[in-house]
Amino acid sequence: MLDAVFKPRGVAVIGASSKELHIGNRVIRNLVDFGFTGGIYPINPKADEIRGLKAYKSLLDVPGDVDVAHMVIPAKFVPMAMEDCGKKGVQHVIINSGGFSETGPEGEKIEKAFLEVAAKYGIRVFGPNCQGVINTDPAYRAYCNFTFTFPGPGAISIVALSGGVAEVIHQGFAAAGVGTRIYASNGNACDVSIPEIIDYLAGDEGTRVIVTYVEGLREPAAFLEAVTNAAARKPVLAMKAGRTAEGAKAAASHTGGLAKEDLATDLIFDRAGALTFTDEGEMIQAAIAFASQPLPKGSRVGLITNTGGPAVIATDILVGAGLTLPPLSDATQARLKETLFPEASVKNPVDVLATGTAEHYRACMDAMMEDDAFDAVLVHFVTPFFVDTDSIAREIAEVNRQRKKPLVCNLMTDRKQWTETVGILKEAEVPFFALPGEAARAMASLVRYHKIQSRPAGEIQTFTEIRAEKARGILENAQAAGRNQLAAEEVYRILDAYGFPTASWRTADDPDAAAKAAEEIGFPVVLKADAASVLHKSDMGGVAVNLADADAVREAAERMQSNIDADDLRFFVQAFVPDGLEVILGAKSEPGLGHLLMFGLGGIFVEVLKDVVFRLTPVTDAEAGRMLEDITGAPLLEGVRGQKGVDRAALASLIQRLSRLVSDLPEIAEMDLNPVKALSDRVVVVDARIAL
Amino acid sequence: MLDAVFKPRGVAVIGASSKELHIGNRVIRNLVDFGFTGGIYPINPKADEIRGLKAYKSLLDVPGDVDVAHMVIPAKFVPMAMEDCGKKGVQHVIINSGGFSETGPEGEKIEKAFLEVAAKYGIRVFGPNCQGVINTDPAYRAYCNFTFTFPGPGAISIVALSGGVAEVIHQGFAAAGVGTRIYASNGNACDVSIPEIIDYLAGDEGTRVIVTYVEGLREPAAFLEAVTNAAARKPVLAMKAGRTAEGAKAAASHTGGLAKEDLATDLIFDRAGALTFTDEGEMIQAAIAFASQPLPKGSRVGLITNTGGPAVIATDILVGAGLTLPPLSDATQARLKETLFPEASVKNPVDVLATGTAEHYRACMDAMMEDDAFDAVLVHFVTPFFVDTDSIAREIAEVNRQRKKPLVCNLMTDRKQWTETVGILKEAEVPFFALPGEAARAMASLVRYHKIQSRPAGEIQTFTEIRAEKARGILENAQAAGRNQLAAEEVYRILDAYGFPTASWRTADDPDAAAKAAEEIGFPVVLKADAASVLHKSDMGGVAVNLADADAVREAAERMQSNIDADDLRFFVQAFVPDGLEVILGAKSEPGLGHLLMFGLGGIFVEVLKDVVFRLTPVTDAEAGRMLEDITGAPLLEGVRGQKGVDRAALASLIQRLSRLVSDLPEIAEMDLNPVKALSDRVVVVDARIAL
Repeated sequence: MLDAVFKPRGVAVIGASSKELHIGNRVIRNLVDFGFTGGIYPINPKADEIRGLKAYKSLLDVPGDVDVAHMVIPAKFVPMAMEDCGKKGVQHVIINSGGFSETGPEGEKIEKAFLEVAAKYGIRVFGPNCQGVINTDPAYRAYCNFTFTFPGPGAISIVALSGGVAEVIHQGFAAAGVGTRIYASNGNACDVSIPEIIDYLAGDEGTRVIVTYVEGLREPAAFLEAVTNAAARKPVLAMKAGRTAEGAKAAASHTGGLAKEDLATDLIFDRAGALTFTDEGEMIQAAIAFASQPLPKGSRVGLITNTGGPAVIATDILVGAGLTLPPLSDATQARLKETLFPEASVKNPVDVLATGTAEHYRACMDAMMEDDAFDAVLVHFVTPFFVDTDSIAREIAEVNRQRKKPLVCNLMTDRKQWTETVGILKEAEVPFFALPGEAARAMASLVRYHKIQSRPAGEIQTFTEIRAEKARGILENAQAAGRNQLAAEEVYRILDAYGFPTASWRTADDPDAAAKAAEEIGFPVVLKADAASVLHKSDMGGVAVNLADADAVREAAERMQSNIDADDLRFFVQAFVPDGLEVILGAKSEPGLGHLLMFGLGGIFVEVLKDVVFRLTPVTDAEAGRMLEDITGAPLLEGVRGQKGVDRAALASLIQRLSRLVSDLPEIAEMDLNPVKALSDRVVVVDARIAL
Repeated sequence: MLDAVFKPRGVAVIGASSKELHIGNRVIRNLVDFGFTGGIYPINPKADEIRGLKAYKSLLDVPGDVDVAHMVIPAKFVPMAMEDCGKKGVQHVIINSGGFSETGPEGEKIEKAFLEVAAKYGIRVFGPNCQGVINTDPAYRAYCNFTFTFPGPGAISIVALSGGVAEVIHQGFAAAGVGTRIYASNGNACDVSIPEIIDYLAGDEGTRVIVTYVEGLREPAAFLEAVTNAAARKPVLAMKAGRTAEGAKAAASHTGGLAKEDLATDLIFDRAGALTFTDEGEMIQAAIAFASQPLPKGSRVGLITNTGGPAVIATDILVGAGLTLPPLSDATQARLKETLFPEASVKNPVDVLATGTAEHYRACMDAMMEDDAFDAVLVHFVTPFFVDTDSIAREIAEVNRQRKKPLVCNLMTDRKQWTETVGILKEAEVPFFALPGEAARAMASLVRYHKIQSRPAGEIQTFTEIRAEKARGILENAQAAGRNQLAAEEVYRILDAYGFPTASWRTADDPDAAAKAAEEIGFPVVLKADAASVLHKSDMGGVAVNLADADAVREAAERMQSNIDADDLRFFVQAFVPDGLEVILGAKSEPGLGHLLMFGLGGIFVEVLKDVVFRLTPVTDAEAGRMLEDITGAPLLEGVRGQKGVDRAALASLIQRLSRLVSDLPEIAEMDLNPVKALSDRVVVVDARIAL
């Protein structure tokens, strides 16, 4: 339980300093200035008092309970200080100092050393090399942190390893006049982890929204579990940076992480039901909307404005994000006509005109809040000097207080002149934004979360006819032989064991046997050279397609024999499937997570257009269905230009079968079914590859 | 010349009011409060003074010169008041009142009436139904406008019909503490037009950047010319809303314009070299950067930061926008290593660490400003309490003052606490933004403008062998016969006249003649039923492809005869081109502009993926080349999977030939070359259609 670090009764600062610009001074100042409700104990062997507080030579001299001890001392003294903490009964240590694992093996050793002491006493460690935590809960007002953003109380909690970005986000809320609940930035995270904090925030009643920033995940499985649990209870807004190769490199240089574009993080957020962002500003604005608004029950938005253009901008954004702007019913239009100015437009967007009054705005808001045709209301509101903008703001505030449906406001004004109007909206916790695009995107985020949360999770299909042990035996044989690449026969025997629909196949030792096998299968056939000792068989003429008779097979096999001079050369003969749409499935092991599953159309779609989608295993039926929908070329699966579509149910089942196979056999590093021929009534795997 | 409206010596307000909430009062107040340097003359038959100024019963009583007269009176009185303006020698009338063409035929009549009077006296009219203008030039300080944003002097000028969005943009600059130069929102724009204002701003020395917002263009050709001229002299930043069908509908409902998604506006901006935006916030931020920074000469950016994460976010955005982050040279790295802290990272991004000093920042900025490997510098700067942030800001300000290369800053701070630091950057006109993404996008906009301005315009290819008169004769014949759709023979005769590479063709009156024609052409052939009286011939079995001999042609023709019962049925026989990549070209008349030219790959690329690009005619060689590059499927033209690419020079020439054809024959409403077969050594038009 992290209660003690977020709700400490007493905080000691080991390394408390009298120097204004020292972190050991700033932490004390922040605690004092923020009004920490517990005891503050500066520890400094040489000072009697610091910032007017009695200082103690040793932590052990402190009379009161110390739940949290900050350490603002050189790394090498930390293990020793940790002993004192243990003796004093400190529950959490926040190590602001750096000089640990982030600096190399020397620092890593120190990190290990203090962790051993901490473990001995049951102390949890936050950091090191971190900012710390802030809890705005009036019962605590714990500013255990050396940053400089002083938040009001609020419902948004922020958690991130990276202090820089966490602080930027925090400043974003503060600049918008929006409070926060808990702030946690834990640097090296040697003990208390991000998933653990997310778990805590999920259970924290005061937290209505969780905002997180990551550049990569250290404990993907724990993260997936924590975010899944949290997102089921409250919105989790997440941003991942380091998306480009260069960005990943930049991230690696300051986190010491791996410089790679990782796909898994996106898939984890997707699976967990978090709302992801690529723009920190958009995430900040969305969080402000989530903090005060109920969640929409659909995607139909009513727009009200007193100036045309901003509603056009918002409409573009909403529609672009998949929201709809249904018209008002005839009855409602007629009713509004009676209230609004004659020149007002009662379509959606409703334009009450610049001269529109509070009464007009109220009538429109009420109509949309009461009408089942709308799930949310977006109010654009410019403040002309000739209308009573305070009254308009009061009506918006009043409607917002009813919390019937989400309401977001685009307030276009000079905040220095219209302080009263602004204050009314702020007081009522109306989420308002200066730009129409900002308000529209915040609204779109509310709806996106609704869509994510209401999408069916689906079920994991059980395949009863599977002979897993057989497949495992084949893998183990290959492993025993020291091979990483399976032979075609092994691959197809595994596919058969798992019930994959494949083109019928035989193996043969020589050209005559190949011709005989082909006759058994029926023509036309494909002939492939199969030799574990040879890697690039197809480059060496090791594949011949569309062979029409036994002679052709024999000749092709003989040609392969002379091209590929290998002792273990055998032949793989397979029915040739001439028709069908080529699709491609793949699986790639993702350490700590299972596999990434890929699906896409073959040929130019994968090579030129990179039109593929990914999911984490295990893939449910609903997810497999969404994979088919999510590729750009999806209409080709449904059938275009008068052509019949393909058997999508069979494709979805194939995806799940692959998911099951790699889940059962995690030693598979990479596996491709490429291509799979998709026909109108079935799918057939015509080539496959497995690497361990 | 619009000098008189932007630089008036005297301003009269016809309809001046003593009521605080009346526009006729507000305009006077704004002029007074903003410190207008000329005479202010309230006109009101019943008042002696308004806001402390002497009021006049009639405009004709005003003693001084009146360059601008505001009209804040009911529409019906405007024509009469215009007479007074004429007699007084007023040069510009700004009509703030509404009630004109925007309300319907009645108002349109009044608009016509006052325009006649204005024409008689040579008065230019701004508006009606408009906000008006603001000029912050200290010599004038003309706030001829009833809005409420009071800008400081600056270098950004804003022009838009839509007052709502223009004002939002204006507020955006004001909120960022950035001044503006000229503000102009002209509502109905019955006389002074947006292109005219853009022309004026292009010539205004105080304007360094022009920002405009449109929902559609009334005078596309004039707009294209004005923006082209302006963008050649200074950056023109443009946003178009109403991009979705719903957005266009919303726009139409308040502008009375056409509800359509228009492509032409984007193409006009592209052709003109303007920088377009779909996000008003991003446009505001870019304008702030353009207002003070020199233009970059390339796309290589150096990043400096004192906190890691924000630089990762920025790197993602820069790289995603096509910018590069080259490494520092070994020599520079070595030199920085001597100055910076040992743990600092001297890669790009350079991380000077949170404890990094002013000297560190300066060394990095100097290195990048002097190093030819960089075209611009992005500085991320969080303000920890333990460093001298004022000194860092002073160094940034100093480097910025040298204007060697563009510099953009991401200042992460609490602006209420770090007022001194913020003030130093503001004073020095350093463009700074709170979020790393904002700063990176502003930087990306600078580079995007550089790319647009440095792309070769190219030349319009002259085709000497063209027989334009012949083509015109064919069109005129069809027009004389009252046909909008040309027969295949007519289409191909026009293509031949313009030297298009087509598959050889013949026409035939009956099945026997068709068979004979096919023999002349050589097999295989395509046979098409050609009958101007029948529209959907292909649906009626009117096309037969890949006919291998004379019998097949005869049979196919007979089958068509029995399927299509038309007196004017003839046959079109053409060589069948079995190979090649299918591409599609199209042209569509755009009133007032010429034609939109389309290019894309055929088949699923156009039908499923909508992978097509457009340009305005006339298309230059450089533009044609860029069209080939801009489609997603471009790699297919270059050749993938070991296949040879297609003859791209021939394709580019084909695009230009089509551009020439529709430019010569503007009565062509729509024309398709679909498909064109593109081969490795040539291109062949295999089907075409022309509609008048």
